[in-house]
Amino acid sequence: MDRPRHGGNLTWAASIASCPVTALTDFSASINPLGTPSRVLAAIIDGTSQLAAYPDPEYRELRSQLGQHHQLPPEFILPGNGSAELLTWAGRELAQQKFTYLITPAFRDYQRALEAFDGSIRACPLSLSLHQEQDQPTLDLPLPQSPAAESGLLLNNPHNPTGKLWTKDEIEPYLLQFSLVVIDEAFMDFLTPSQSQSLISLVPDYPNLVILRSLTKFYSLPGLRIGYAIAHPSRIARWRSWRDPWSVNTLAVVAAIAAIQDQEFQQQTWDWLLTARPQLKEQLRAISGLMPFDGAANYLLVKSDYSVSWLQEQLLKQDQLLIRDCLSFPELGDRFFRIAVRLPADNQRLVTAITRIIEQ
Amino acid sequence: MDRPRHGGNLTWAASIASCPVTALTDFSASINPLGTPSRVLAAIIDGTSQLAAYPDPEYRELRSQLGQHHQLPPEFILPGNGSAELLTWAGRELAQQKFTYLITPAFRDYQRALEAFDGSIRACPLSLSLHQEQDQPTLDLPLPQSPAAESGLLLNNPHNPTGKLWTKDEIEPYLLQFSLVVIDEAFMDFLTPSQSQSLISLVPDYPNLVILRSLTKFYSLPGLRIGYAIAHPSRIARWRSWRDPWSVNTLAVVAAIAAIQDQEFQQQTWDWLLTARPQLKEQLRAISGLMPFDGAANYLLVKSDYSVSWLQEQLLKQDQLLIRDCLSFPELGDRFFRIAVRLPADNQRLVTAITRIIEQ
Repeated sequence: MDRPRHGGNLTWAASIASCPVTALTDFSASINPLGTPSRVLAAIIDGTSQLAAYPDPEYRELRSQLGQHHQLPPEFILPGNGSAELLTWAGRELAQQKFTYLITPAFRDYQRALEAFDGSIRACPLSLSLHQEQDQPTLDLPLPQSPAAESGLLLNNPHNPTGKLWTKDEIEPYLLQFSLVVIDEAFMDFLTPSQSQSLISLVPDYPNLVILRSLTKFYSLPGLRIGYAIAHPSRIARWRSWRDPWSVNTLAVVAAIAAIQDQEFQQQTWDWLLTARPQLKEQLRAISGLMPFDGAANYLLVKSDYSVSWLQEQLLKQDQLLIRDCLSFPELGDRFFRIAVRLPADNQRLVTAITRIIEQ
Repeated sequence: MDRPRHGGNLTWAASIASCPVTALTDFSASINPLGTPSRVLAAIIDGTSQLAAYPDPEYRELRSQLGQHHQLPPEFILPGNGSAELLTWAGRELAQQKFTYLITPAFRDYQRALEAFDGSIRACPLSLSLHQEQDQPTLDLPLPQSPAAESGLLLNNPHNPTGKLWTKDEIEPYLLQFSLVVIDEAFMDFLTPSQSQSLISLVPDYPNLVILRSLTKFYSLPGLRIGYAIAHPSRIARWRSWRDPWSVNTLAVVAAIAAIQDQEFQQQTWDWLLTARPQLKEQLRAISGLMPFDGAANYLLVKSDYSVSWLQEQLLKQDQLLIRDCLSFPELGDRFFRIAVRLPADNQRLVTAITRIIEQ
């Protein structure tokens, strides 16, 4: 079986591990380990009684609820079949710009969405190397002071795979420099409201700004597909005219409405991540030859003195643990891996297994 | 509330009828009235345990099962987020042709998909008028003997909204005339294998042929979104490179696999339609001023001497029955309506209500 292009391909991993998919512990997909909230799951089960009707093509209820959640009128909101669907339409508009500046390493699907519409990409590499006395690269935004005219910017914040969070103040000046700025905030929900650096509140002031959000990572629903875009109403209307009228399934609609109202689950997730991430990071730092990056999201990028293909294979074969190799990021290659932060017991299993394999 | 552009907008209809959506009897959406098969519903409920994982981006299991179902290798199959998503990509390829010939009246979403990519449409109107001694228009394919070079054809069979079924032999010669032929067979499942005029078996011989199929109408799942395209592997690979990797949600995958295996439900549906459709048609014919068309699918187009906007409103207000007006088909306007064939008791209610309203 071929190695998958994207992460999270469990069928491939299970074949290496010689076990059923359900026996794997997956650190490769950055999904909330608290699982789908019980209220959301109940809404989904309840929603199965509505499957014999088409979804409302206006998605009135969902847009209204998301609008209230972000204090914006519903006309600014477009729900999508996962944020990946909305990235397709963002890619189409970015491709109409002369160039799209893309911070690299970048989520591979960005390239797909831009190339699907023959967009021209200008790669802006993050500096991953350490300077003297530093134990972390600073990961400043590697963008030019004066980009080419009529250019677009596609940025994700927090950044995947490094976990770097840029502040609203660092990003805002670029809204004046680029004709179109698309910010993928797929992991922003993992930050508390006080930590958040979301640019959603700037959308009314910047018609050239698009924010993409995902609900599948935080609410552990990647199988159901639900995300949304926030942008000026004229852009939202244009994207709607391009795609089919029933792009978001009914169960995703009811799940999303239940999810954003579940404040208890949101607090539980923030509480878990507040202790689990620094703990895992310190445990990895203590392993000779591994250097975990600071990260603001629910995953950590780790620089490794060991071949990651080798380490990944050993972890699968010996422990049924799947880490995300970085071979799909050409800038990273075989000396980096990314892991989702999971519950403490799983994190401990991973740390123990890596230590044992490295010392063998 | 504005009148919806598409049919099946129950929220709008319920506001006219002053009743909850669930109190409506919907003849406007052409969905199987036997409901979602219990085996399919069970597969969906069972599948909710898999939502915390991404769908397999290769959709190996589903493509393999659909391939077996149609006796084709899986490389010829592309599952979609409803056939409406696949229509988007068909629209993109048709728009690259000089013109796309479109039989009118046509499902409104065809125009959306073609205009989304600036396609040029050549409308080919069906002749709906009656000649002497006829009680039905013949609805021959209104296509030119020699279409413009490098042109596309977008056809649905059976045709929506007339219900006309063209034979495989009638269509096949056009595969030599057009550079790209897209046949939407969204309602073909309602025909028994011996009645079917599907062109799927011709796909291996014609690289310029694309078939679109829906599973949501026959299996009563429009809320879940599942359809598929059948075409040459190079075209399937190109469409995949354009869209995001996880377009079909996990519950749609498990539902589709359960659905195509449910031969008992397929037979029940054919048995129901075999008696319910001619019965409803005869009852409508008996009403003065109404002329139902012959139809091969699970709906009937009806020509009306009465204003359909008026009739629709009366049926909603007096009986909470929703029929499909044809205002979104400019060629039809206010003197045609379309109704789904439902279970005999519902069909009888509709016939009784129409008779009463007309005689009032």
